Amino acid sequence: MELEPAFARAGAMVFSNAGAFRMSPEVPLLVPEVNAAHLGLLEVQRHHHGWTGGIITNANCTATVLVMALAPLHEAFGVEAVLMTSMQAVSGAGYPGVPSLDILGNVIPFIRNEEPKVEEETPKMLGRFTGSAVELAPITVSALCHRVPVIEGHTEAVSVKLKGNPSLDAVREAFLSWRPEPQRLGLFSAPAIPVHVHTLEDRPQVRRDVERDEGMSVHVGRIRVCPILGLKFALLGHNTERGAAGGSILNAELAHAKGYIR
Amino acid sequence: MELEPAFARAGAMVFSNAGAFRMSPEVPLLVPEVNAAHLGLLEVQRHHHGWTGGIITNANCTATVLVMALAPLHEAFGVEAVLMTSMQAVSGAGYPGVPSLDILGNVIPFIRNEEPKVEEETPKMLGRFTGSAVELAPITVSALCHRVPVIEGHTEAVSVKLKGNPSLDAVREAFLSWRPEPQRLGLFSAPAIPVHVHTLEDRPQVRRDVERDEGMSVHVGRIRVCPILGLKFALLGHNTERGAAGGSILNAELAHAKGYIR
Amino acid sequence: MELEPAFARAGAMVFSNAGAFRMSPEVPLLVPEVNAAHLGLLEVQRHHHGWTGGIITNANCTATVLVMALAPLHEAFGVEAVLMTSMQAVSGAGYPGVPSLDILGNVIPFIRNEEPKVEEETPKMLGRFTGSAVELAPITVSALCHRVPVIEGHTEAVSVKLKGNPSLDAVREAFLSWRPEPQRLGLFSAPAIPVHVHTLEDRPQVRRDVERDEGMSVHVGRIRVCPILGLKFALLGHNTERGAAGGSILNAELAHAKGYIR
Amino acid sequence: MELEPAFARAGAMVFSNAGAFRMSPEVPLLVPEVNAAHLGLLEVQRHHHGWTGGIITNANCTATVLVMALAPLHEAFGVEAVLMTSMQAVSGAGYPGVPSLDILGNVIPFIRNEEPKVEEETPKMLGRFTGSAVELAPITVSALCHRVPVIEGHTEAVSVKLKGNPSLDAVREAFLSWRPEPQRLGLFSAPAIPVHVHTLEDRPQVRRDVERDEGMSVHVGRIRVCPILGLKFALLGHNTERGAAGGSILNAELAHAKGYIR
Repeated sequence: MELEPAFARAGAMVFSNAGAFRMSPEVPLLVPEVNAAHLGLLEVQRHHHGWTGGIITNANCTATVLVMALAPLHEAFGVEAVLMTSMQAVSGAGYPGVPSLDILGNVIPFIRNEEPKVEEETPKMLGRFTGSAVELAPITVSALCHRVPVIEGHTEAVSVKLKGNPSLDAVREAFLSWRPEPQRLGLFSAPAIPVHVHTLEDRPQVRRDVERDEGMSVHVGRIRVCPILGLKFALLGHNTERGAAGGSILNAELAHAKGYIR
Repeated sequence: MELEPAFARAGAMVFSNAGAFRMSPEVPLLVPEVNAAHLGLLEVQRHHHGWTGGIITNANCTATVLVMALAPLHEAFGVEAVLMTSMQAVSGAGYPGVPSLDILGNVIPFIRNEEPKVEEETPKMLGRFTGSAVELAPITVSALCHRVPVIEGHTEAVSVKLKGNPSLDAVREAFLSWRPEPQRLGLFSAPAIPVHVHTLEDRPQVRRDVERDEGMSVHVGRIRVCPILGLKFALLGHNTERGAAGGSILNAELAHAKGYIR
Repeated sequence: MELEPAFARAGAMVFSNAGAFRMSPEVPLLVPEVNAAHLGLLEVQRHHHGWTGGIITNANCTATVLVMALAPLHEAFGVEAVLMTSMQAVSGAGYPGVPSLDILGNVIPFIRNEEPKVEEETPKMLGRFTGSAVELAPITVSALCHRVPVIEGHTEAVSVKLKGNPSLDAVREAFLSWRPEPQRLGLFSAPAIPVHVHTLEDRPQVRRDVERDEGMSVHVGRIRVCPILGLKFALLGHNTERGAAGGSILNAELAHAKGYIR
Repeated sequence: MELEPAFARAGAMVFSNAGAFRMSPEVPLLVPEVNAAHLGLLEVQRHHHGWTGGIITNANCTATVLVMALAPLHEAFGVEAVLMTSMQAVSGAGYPGVPSLDILGNVIPFIRNEEPKVEEETPKMLGRFTGSAVELAPITVSALCHRVPVIEGHTEAVSVKLKGNPSLDAVREAFLSWRPEPQRLGLFSAPAIPVHVHTLEDRPQVRRDVERDEGMSVHVGRIRVCPILGLKFALLGHNTERGAAGGSILNAELAHAKGYIR
């Protein structure tokens, strides 16, 4: 038996980092900067099941980092398609996780179940809450996931098709001016700047940038034209902070600020 | 003064791994499996300049590996667009090259001049020799290049738009049945199988596969559907063998077999 | 011309991390926990040269870490011989420093000039200030230095011959009870505990321990019997904090506390 | 039940890489270059147990590499004490073995049971066969074992006390002139030169040297004076070839050449 519904029935708010309920239509796949409104699904859960608590999940680490960068673009322009190639840290596999014989001096072009998760979870996270459900965003996602010999931090090479093909300046401005709900509310674990825009030509770099803001912000750099989809950029985020435990804590802070935890 | 033309004028056949003449319209950017016919440009060089020798270049290492995998698809179906994310070995930067402080436990999302080279050289290599010139192939290329802590071997995550959207089985068959000129001629440095198709779900891997055939073949794996461009696969090749010195030697073997070196 | 004497003549206190004056008999090779009394050499410098300032150097990074662990043993028992094998981080070589092609997946059993520095500087640092000079400690030192693929932190495998062959418990107690001058004075950059004694069987480890106390403490573990010299243990310290910049700052704090900087 | 005696009773010659029988007084701990005479213990086994087969083990990988370098010195001068610090590859731990989270960018100063094995097995391997038993060599051994982020190949920093304190030239000559039994017999897997003496100041290096001779030779370099024990040098050998499978095969070749396998 899954534990989450039992706890929710008993009145607990469950903030889960596990995969089981992420794609359940009644469960928010929450990244506070991206889809705070999805918290409204808690009412749906309570109404349907008679729970006094509820279930909130955070997403796959790679998808979480990705939507942090896509959200300001989706809000400003509308995202139509995303092609993302990841270079993921070994900490994402837990402990003991990846054997050193497999990854020292190597790149592994496969992480079990990772690509489908990114491709499914992204449209849910960027979807619209209608009052009773989350409508998946009409975004086509292609993920190509790799393991690399890095301890903490996922690097993502992102190519995006935006509506109206905005200029690079407009894209930069969308990142820089983004001030979503956790920042407006001043939540304790919310970084002041959720997306850092790097201008040095060879940044962001995982070993040099990922620990900034205790791993709760993400990093965008090398914003440039993609001759196929229109826009490409480098992206970096912390898989075990923003992409796991830290994300769940921020989820709890948002739920508390919104009155869902008494 | 550039040395290549001086040597060519003096009657030497120059097989160059340098970048200077790669995009010159009279100079073949030669990968024998891909564009043996481009050797015909030697006649153009000789006619225009009165040389008795000539200049043949090999391409950027990342682009060379890429066209080895694209050529069978281009011949069978026609390639319209390619989006390639590379994870490149430090040996590609020469010696002393990349400082260890920059790359241990790190990913660098930038290699100077690398992306433009891949985007320019690929359409030239896949172009058609008309008898007097090479017509660039009408292929849009987007490259996103990264340095990773690997000694030898470039891993590439490739997404491709093919004409007619062929099935994965047709794609596999195109790789497996490819038998280009160096293999038909039995050139000494030509690998018996130029493109290995891996079926294990987590291969090819640079540390385990790149030294096969003394680094002269390339490796394709994880052939799957891309929801955006139609096809995606993992690709691996040896940057300092096939992508550099070994490539030039094979170029010389082809030129000799074709009667250009007496 | 060396700059240090010119500055000292002009009244400046020079805290140098360079190698030039380390073995000069009038210059303190200062590690505040180890040889605070050596500051008395400043009077000698001033008397001899008529300087109003002075020169204080810190030691080679590997030697600095080593004497931090030897000092409590030398004070409690007397050290007669030390055989030390180092596994040193690449940051010790500065930038660009060690090429990645040399160190990825490798161990280099040589660092230019490193072994003589450790062998010479250690007896000076552990020497006695007589009032007018530092008498070298009668300790035989053998150093075997290696570079390993680590970013920050030197690991040292230390075997020691102590007078009277004390028990392991007595050795542990000597480390634990050590409370040298910077800790008694409460200097700002002095760690509360200068030598951490680890009891987990596989610690200290550079990636997990070296950043503690902002790299200003050292770490001892695996204290055990050496069948040849009597005692052996694992040692770890931060080469660019305690072993370089941080060490010089602590030197300045000690000099200030002792009234040498007005 | 242990399998080895059952097989030996049944007439099989068992060449084992496992640890169980290594220190059994009747079992040769065989490195053909070092102690071919120990094969005589097979007669003892057969006589005592009525076996028609027998058990031969190879040693711990670190100890095997060490005795390959000590044997020529022990034959020429007599070894009295050895202090060895190892930097060992992850392949020594098997698969999955060392988690990547433990070793990327790290050094672990502990390998379970490794130091006692090296300290026990070395005197047995260098011992003298009396006709009925192996007399342990009177050599004191201290081992300090470390895991480093290397795939294949153990680096060892060795300090040795030799009888009569021979010159460095005499030591070099002892290595260079060593021509033990497998080389005289021309055994198939025996390297022509069992100990390579490097003269470049920064060699041997694991990534550059360990695969020579298919990993069956060892490498000595940086031969220099140790102010404590008299002699020190760098040593390198292949832990899974010479130190494991390859070693057992050479053991079988020797047993066959000596008539123990019909």
